[in-house]
Amino acid sequence: MADLDFFFKPRSIAIIGASETPGRIGYQVLSSIKEGGYEGDVFPISIKNKGPILGFEVYKSILDVPSPIDLAIFALSAQHAPEILKQCGKKNVKGVIIISGGFKELGAEGRKLEGQMVEVAQKHNIRIIGPNCMGVLSPKAKLDTFFQPRYAMTRPKAGIVGVATQSGTFGISMLECFSHNEVGMSKFVSYGNMSDVDELDMLEFFEEDPETKIIAIYVEGLTDGRRFMELARRVSVKKPIVMLKGGRTATGSKAAASHTGSLAGNDTVFSAAMKQSGVVLVDDIDELLDTVKILAKQPLPLGGAVAMVTNGVGPCVVAADEIADSKNLSLAELSEETFSHLQSCLPPFCIFSNPVDITGSAKASWFGCGLEALNGDNSVDIIMPFFVFQDAPLAETIDEFHEIMKKVNESQKTMLCVAFGGEYTRKQVNKLQENGIPVIPTSKRAVLALSNVVWYAEYVRNRKSQ
Amino acid sequence: MADLDFFFKPRSIAIIGASETPGRIGYQVLSSIKEGGYEGDVFPISIKNKGPILGFEVYKSILDVPSPIDLAIFALSAQHAPEILKQCGKKNVKGVIIISGGFKELGAEGRKLEGQMVEVAQKHNIRIIGPNCMGVLSPKAKLDTFFQPRYAMTRPKAGIVGVATQSGTFGISMLECFSHNEVGMSKFVSYGNMSDVDELDMLEFFEEDPETKIIAIYVEGLTDGRRFMELARRVSVKKPIVMLKGGRTATGSKAAASHTGSLAGNDTVFSAAMKQSGVVLVDDIDELLDTVKILAKQPLPLGGAVAMVTNGVGPCVVAADEIADSKNLSLAELSEETFSHLQSCLPPFCIFSNPVDITGSAKASWFGCGLEALNGDNSVDIIMPFFVFQDAPLAETIDEFHEIMKKVNESQKTMLCVAFGGEYTRKQVNKLQENGIPVIPTSKRAVLALSNVVWYAEYVRNRKSQ
Repeated sequence: MADLDFFFKPRSIAIIGASETPGRIGYQVLSSIKEGGYEGDVFPISIKNKGPILGFEVYKSILDVPSPIDLAIFALSAQHAPEILKQCGKKNVKGVIIISGGFKELGAEGRKLEGQMVEVAQKHNIRIIGPNCMGVLSPKAKLDTFFQPRYAMTRPKAGIVGVATQSGTFGISMLECFSHNEVGMSKFVSYGNMSDVDELDMLEFFEEDPETKIIAIYVEGLTDGRRFMELARRVSVKKPIVMLKGGRTATGSKAAASHTGSLAGNDTVFSAAMKQSGVVLVDDIDELLDTVKILAKQPLPLGGAVAMVTNGVGPCVVAADEIADSKNLSLAELSEETFSHLQSCLPPFCIFSNPVDITGSAKASWFGCGLEALNGDNSVDIIMPFFVFQDAPLAETIDEFHEIMKKVNESQKTMLCVAFGGEYTRKQVNKLQENGIPVIPTSKRAVLALSNVVWYAEYVRNRKSQ
Repeated sequence: MADLDFFFKPRSIAIIGASETPGRIGYQVLSSIKEGGYEGDVFPISIKNKGPILGFEVYKSILDVPSPIDLAIFALSAQHAPEILKQCGKKNVKGVIIISGGFKELGAEGRKLEGQMVEVAQKHNIRIIGPNCMGVLSPKAKLDTFFQPRYAMTRPKAGIVGVATQSGTFGISMLECFSHNEVGMSKFVSYGNMSDVDELDMLEFFEEDPETKIIAIYVEGLTDGRRFMELARRVSVKKPIVMLKGGRTATGSKAAASHTGSLAGNDTVFSAAMKQSGVVLVDDIDELLDTVKILAKQPLPLGGAVAMVTNGVGPCVVAADEIADSKNLSLAELSEETFSHLQSCLPPFCIFSNPVDITGSAKASWFGCGLEALNGDNSVDIIMPFFVFQDAPLAETIDEFHEIMKKVNESQKTMLCVAFGGEYTRKQVNKLQENGIPVIPTSKRAVLALSNVVWYAEYVRNRKSQ
């Protein structure tokens, strides 16, 4: 396992190219470190600014700092990188994050500059994250190196998902959607051009990291496809790996090349290889979030039989279509006992089939009855309630509803809810998700993510039975 | 054209089964009518409640009301429907909305009851919306008949989209997502079991309705497929029809049958027929909203050549993949003049290709430059900027950004933006959408909706050149 701890819990940090101008990278990074509540020593380095900046004393060079430095963050123009790396070497810095762009992604000259920088780093045994990246978030160590201001981007809580991303923008998307869906992160790394630390390092790191239980990754190109496959195959039986791949097609690959300088490979071969290695491949950020969310909040399903209960069937009809199109899901055949149970506690104008339609007149207690009945049915692997929070009878019994849902979620079946709406619905969704119950807005997204999770659960069962 | 005006601008309304208990349908409907600001006469009808309810005098029977009634809304138990319809006949009521369920969707007996009710209505020349439905929203007449309280469901503004839906729940989804995306509605009808007014009536009505420019429709089954095709073919060259179809598959169709009692047909045949008729078929509520949003806010594209500009390329790479997979989109080949233009106003570390990567350092003015250059390029049909609002340089110049976007949107090219994020991003998205610029959160959704719109534009061009 690569020792990368100094990136995630450094005892001290230098910001090279610190600025006193809000909006500039060298200011924003410092501001994030301060506002994040980082407790180690912080040393802004600047030739121009005398400081103090944000209360921190400023040094002209890293070599002037009187105490040791674990991590340096580079926010100057690219051409200064090799010289600064030399100074970092002298100072025995362990890791450097190069936020700045202007390297490989610009073509031949930039590639040369990046090579020079890496050479210096290797000579001094320094690890590099970047260049052309956002750096790290390490919630437990209260460390974030982002140049995105807190008013514009929310940071997620500490949690069990480890994130590695080549694209900073997808990194931002993950930070925001994880935050707004009550999914916590263990560690987050945006490594841009991957001049040194890459997806292989991060996969090895996450494999051993006790805080990380699920791995989410965005890649454009892989450093070493064969090695990644071997590693993924080893890791995936222990921790699910959910991967979004940019540059699947020639068109996308060309766009990727002019971005982080990566070359992507053949789509079909790649997909097959990833599946063999147990990697859950997704197509977009929504699918990534939805899949990770179920994995993070719920037990793995024992099969693909889905039971639905709802106070508004329309979206269940569309979900039934999507289930029919999926390869590994089906509508559960409910038992006679389940129907008797349902009939004993629901009014006769409800519709006793799968989906169980408790109608727009449904109050919270009707959901309680429906969910309890489905929970007791052995033919059901996954319970998928669809809520219409807008309907008056449910809205008027909403507190009772949340009490019921907490109890229902104690069962060992996988539960995934679907609900779509505005502010009011959002409030109910937040409450459910805080209580560990995943909610997805639409039928299509729910079924797609569910299908991914069922595929992964089956992969693990097959591997373990071998 | 069916005369259905009495449903959308009635001079007076009776609510049969009015209640003084919040949460009950007969109370909620009355409450929506009052809170919506309806200006005609309102007559609650109740045997149990003496009233007044919400300030309106209560009558024991519709026959006791001293003045004429255009529209009656029925919120009693199903079995009372035929008798009440008789009374409505005596009173010369023109239209009745049956909110209550308990009819065809319950099987043979309910089907019989529904038949009896329709028979009475036909005898007295009364039109019916429902049963098992939400009724109507008619923003210009300030009329809404929904039993969903305003605190739980937002109502959209008046606008150009006419909505007809068999499922009330999808109706709710459309009301909420249109509201939150600054898409206005002309008229909205949820007709549930379609005992009388159906998609054919609504299509004819929307065809002639001067307020309606776009038609959005959710169906499970069609009353008369052949007639619908003929009608759709006539309407679709004038007004786009975007359709979500539940029950495409045998599994979904079975779920639909136990819901609104509709039987759906063969998927492949249905899709082909709809395409021939110029109907844009979508798979889920997101796709419906996204497609309608572009149609409502932007001119139709002249072709499928897309140009992207961004301060964060990752999602553009995924979009390029999706464009490559689509049948009718491509990345525009930018002209030499465009590249010169871009190079003249952007720093050299930007990447001058398609996507134009103006990097995380981009301020508002850089987007101004990029968008102006793309606007001037004849090879570009669609401009698709991807915004990372979280990046400090853009966030710190956000007011200038919105000024620039307003100007850029005056061009005749189709523009569709992509942006993903939390509260801060949401604010910027709202502002853009208020100014008529559609924004979609993810690459996959954006490309899918764009492909639908390009397909429709081409369909219309082909039909018009015949």
